Amino acid sequence: MNTQDRVPDDKIKLNKVGITDLKTLIKIKRKKKEYWHTPTINICIDLSEHKKGIHMSRLIECIIESLEEEIEEEHYSLEDLGKNILEKVRSKHSYEKGEISFRSDLPLMKKTPKSRKRTVEIHEIVVKVMYDKAWKKVLRVEVIGNTLCPHALELSGKTHIQRAKGTLEIECEFEKDVSLEEMIEIVEESFSSQVYTLLKSEDEAHVIETMHENPRFVEDVTRRILERSKRFGCKARAECISYESIHRHNVYSEGEL
Amino acid sequence: MNTQDRVPDDKIKLNKVGITDLKTLIKIKRKKKEYWHTPTINICIDLSEHKKGIHMSRLIECIIESLEEEIEEEHYSLEDLGKNILEKVRSKHSYEKGEISFRSDLPLMKKTPKSRKRTVEIHEIVVKVMYDKAWKKVLRVEVIGNTLCPHALELSGKTHIQRAKGTLEIECEFEKDVSLEEMIEIVEESFSSQVYTLLKSEDEAHVIETMHENPRFVEDVTRRILERSKRFGCKARAECISYESIHRHNVYSEGEL
Amino acid sequence: MNTQDRVPDDKIKLNKVGITDLKTLIKIKRKKKEYWHTPTINICIDLSEHKKGIHMSRLIECIIESLEEEIEEEHYSLEDLGKNILEKVRSKHSYEKGEISFRSDLPLMKKTPKSRKRTVEIHEIVVKVMYDKAWKKVLRVEVIGNTLCPHALELSGKTHIQRAKGTLEIECEFEKDVSLEEMIEIVEESFSSQVYTLLKSEDEAHVIETMHENPRFVEDVTRRILERSKRFGCKARAECISYESIHRHNVYSEGEL
Amino acid sequence: MNTQDRVPDDKIKLNKVGITDLKTLIKIKRKKKEYWHTPTINICIDLSEHKKGIHMSRLIECIIESLEEEIEEEHYSLEDLGKNILEKVRSKHSYEKGEISFRSDLPLMKKTPKSRKRTVEIHEIVVKVMYDKAWKKVLRVEVIGNTLCPHALELSGKTHIQRAKGTLEIECEFEKDVSLEEMIEIVEESFSSQVYTLLKSEDEAHVIETMHENPRFVEDVTRRILERSKRFGCKARAECISYESIHRHNVYSEGEL
Repeated sequence: MNTQDRVPDDKIKLNKVGITDLKTLIKIKRKKKEYWHTPTINICIDLSEHKKGIHMSRLIECIIESLEEEIEEEHYSLEDLGKNILEKVRSKHSYEKGEISFRSDLPLMKKTPKSRKRTVEIHEIVVKVMYDKAWKKVLRVEVIGNTLCPHALELSGKTHIQRAKGTLEIECEFEKDVSLEEMIEIVEESFSSQVYTLLKSEDEAHVIETMHENPRFVEDVTRRILERSKRFGCKARAECISYESIHRHNVYSEGEL
Repeated sequence: MNTQDRVPDDKIKLNKVGITDLKTLIKIKRKKKEYWHTPTINICIDLSEHKKGIHMSRLIECIIESLEEEIEEEHYSLEDLGKNILEKVRSKHSYEKGEISFRSDLPLMKKTPKSRKRTVEIHEIVVKVMYDKAWKKVLRVEVIGNTLCPHALELSGKTHIQRAKGTLEIECEFEKDVSLEEMIEIVEESFSSQVYTLLKSEDEAHVIETMHENPRFVEDVTRRILERSKRFGCKARAECISYESIHRHNVYSEGEL
Repeated sequence: MNTQDRVPDDKIKLNKVGITDLKTLIKIKRKKKEYWHTPTINICIDLSEHKKGIHMSRLIECIIESLEEEIEEEHYSLEDLGKNILEKVRSKHSYEKGEISFRSDLPLMKKTPKSRKRTVEIHEIVVKVMYDKAWKKVLRVEVIGNTLCPHALELSGKTHIQRAKGTLEIECEFEKDVSLEEMIEIVEESFSSQVYTLLKSEDEAHVIETMHENPRFVEDVTRRILERSKRFGCKARAECISYESIHRHNVYSEGEL
Repeated sequence: MNTQDRVPDDKIKLNKVGITDLKTLIKIKRKKKEYWHTPTINICIDLSEHKKGIHMSRLIECIIESLEEEIEEEHYSLEDLGKNILEKVRSKHSYEKGEISFRSDLPLMKKTPKSRKRTVEIHEIVVKVMYDKAWKKVLRVEVIGNTLCPHALELSGKTHIQRAKGTLEIECEFEKDVSLEEMIEIVEESFSSQVYTLLKSEDEAHVIETMHENPRFVEDVTRRILERSKRFGCKARAECISYESIHRHNVYSEGEL
């Protein structure tokens, strides 16, 4: 009998047992566009109180086999791939609850606001698929923007401005169609202004003007993200963290639908 | 009327609004021993849907005022200090839910196992105090140790060994007396072996012997931590992450009481 | 006159002025294989004591224009691309010294050692191109492996094992052909054993056996990397850091040719 | 013969062999004020091509013994302590070059600029002591502040502002008296404005006013730090990194005296 299949000394059920920080290469073909990811993957299943351990290498095998199929078929999204991996795991290893997440970069092509030049913007995303009697997923985007303080502006006409990070996390049934691109757009438009990798002088002036027209606390950014996420009709959680230019510390806000 | 006290555009209640990553200097006097901390502090309160923002500087003022009192009185633990700060916040700012956490280092004096030399071991801890109708706290310790794989050892008499990190988090009513030192000891004794900063040859031989007598999966470490935490009679959560020596990725386990 | 072109208050020459932590999407076609990178880019030029500032947006424009050409031509390596960008910068902005670096992931396809299954291994790399009268480059690979302590093994027949990271950095004239894949292979073969993402039981037994046949200190790993890098005939620097399983701290070694 | 004292397979001299990321507790008494540090310590010595390894545990022993003496005598600075440790190492282990560094926090008591309230500001510092025929030291401070863009301000009267980090590193003979507090003050005064943990409304208005009176590029900040460091009469290196509020990336400048 395998060591893993023995009865453990301490008979306690475990919620999550698996692998973290596994990096691999994934090619996704979606709506005729190809995306390569080298995500960081976490994959876990639960473990009954009667077994000493899980068979870790089976998790890896399922990831590799799914990726090889995918390379041949090339029709997955990260969430389809995640579900495929968890289903394959079930054929090799019993579990009641399982989950897999991919942390990766999503590149979006944009135009600068005034000079209309092409620029590429990279956003951090997390795609998580969970099985617990039913299939669910969590989609998360982390987007850079800024805040311009409305309180100081009102008091003196001058104010402080800083980089901020906004996060939107949607939890829904697996089948629901939620677009990461739309989630990113919601967060970007909730800041005092969007930011861009390339800014010519006229673009920079436009961004500065936009910031001054939209003074926002982190509280405003968080609420705006939530308000505009109502359209998805699912559980949503939003955060905004502002890397204050007048303090050593950060300012933070979090809420949920 | 202050900008913060206006009605917000998007009338949504927020769970947490406040400050993160604030560092300060704290001197604690406890059982005649003095401890200095330069913790990283997060402090948040909730915000009603009728107010645009919280008054961030009042949070900081309450931290500073509590620290000045504390420097005079010198009888606080980090949790007493946290509660004191949150109570002070309530006298300056209304809230329904509030929380403060301190991430810091806890130095423990030990003897090496065989040569009996003095050594200092530093552990990461988090102390969190929460108010939501009643006072609660969360205590967390993060402790370095190791795992020696029982499966490989059984198959061939040889095996792989690696550094691991064990985490224990206890959630309980505020008044309950739970010792961080005892929590650290529980995690240390759940590994294949404890680790030490100083090891003379005879100590190193002892650690290696101990590891080989206690082959453990991350699942075993997690369960052992949980089993030994039953004594506290509260909600407990344990994790073990193993920085595998035979893989690029980590192996992980999590459970709760 | 542009603000940047004014005389600065403090007339001091600066070594490096530019942009850090810029992420973008790069597609490289090399020997008929395609690679996508979303690297982190740093790009800097020097600045004379007579000018207040550099024109930052020109650096970005040069990156974007080079990438657009590259997407059409698809024949670059990261180092060709870096040189192209720096040459383009010179047509828009004077400088005496310039450098650009790309930090990225390099996926390599491998077979597991015994079961001969396919596995993908991801390594961190840095490619840096520098201009200072002549063109030079620095190539860096960071590779995960392990160390098995020869001293403890000799004393008692038992020992400690841990994950380690080896680094090799080659500095040479731009034209020289040095392969990142070969550099990675040199580091991998300098450890007590290579590591793999996928390991079936027979593979794991093989890795454990290999570690025990090759007990190595970090000093041994560093020297082996250097010895085997003599073939390149250039400046080389090697490091090994070992995440000790018997200590909280790490053990480190560094040397150069 | 100890394994470490054998002849290595690859006879290559190594520059640095030792320990990294060791945390310990240090109490310093200086000008009647006491400071506690829990620094991260790196300690390395060189290794001749004729020895396989260094005796790592002797480095730790020297740290622990020096700390115990220090606790009794209580008259050290971090640099005195570092020199004491390296001298002790030499009595137990031969070396030609040795170095030790401490990364720690330095708390400074300040008054807010207008309301004159007490606030504590924590700065990151590195103290490094090196022996190579003579004793030298490197002192480094990393200080948070901000930049306000002069170019945008000039063009439109409005501008962007962001958090920035300034670094000053001084290298000099060991005996030279250079104050970390003075180094921190130089960096703070080189930004568009200093930042504070506590800011009442009147203080915040003052900081915002100061930023607008001192528009600065990262280039200006770096040069100002260098200009004001000429007073030390030693090798100095300065950096400024600006976490741009209008971009995802950072802007960087570096120079030296």
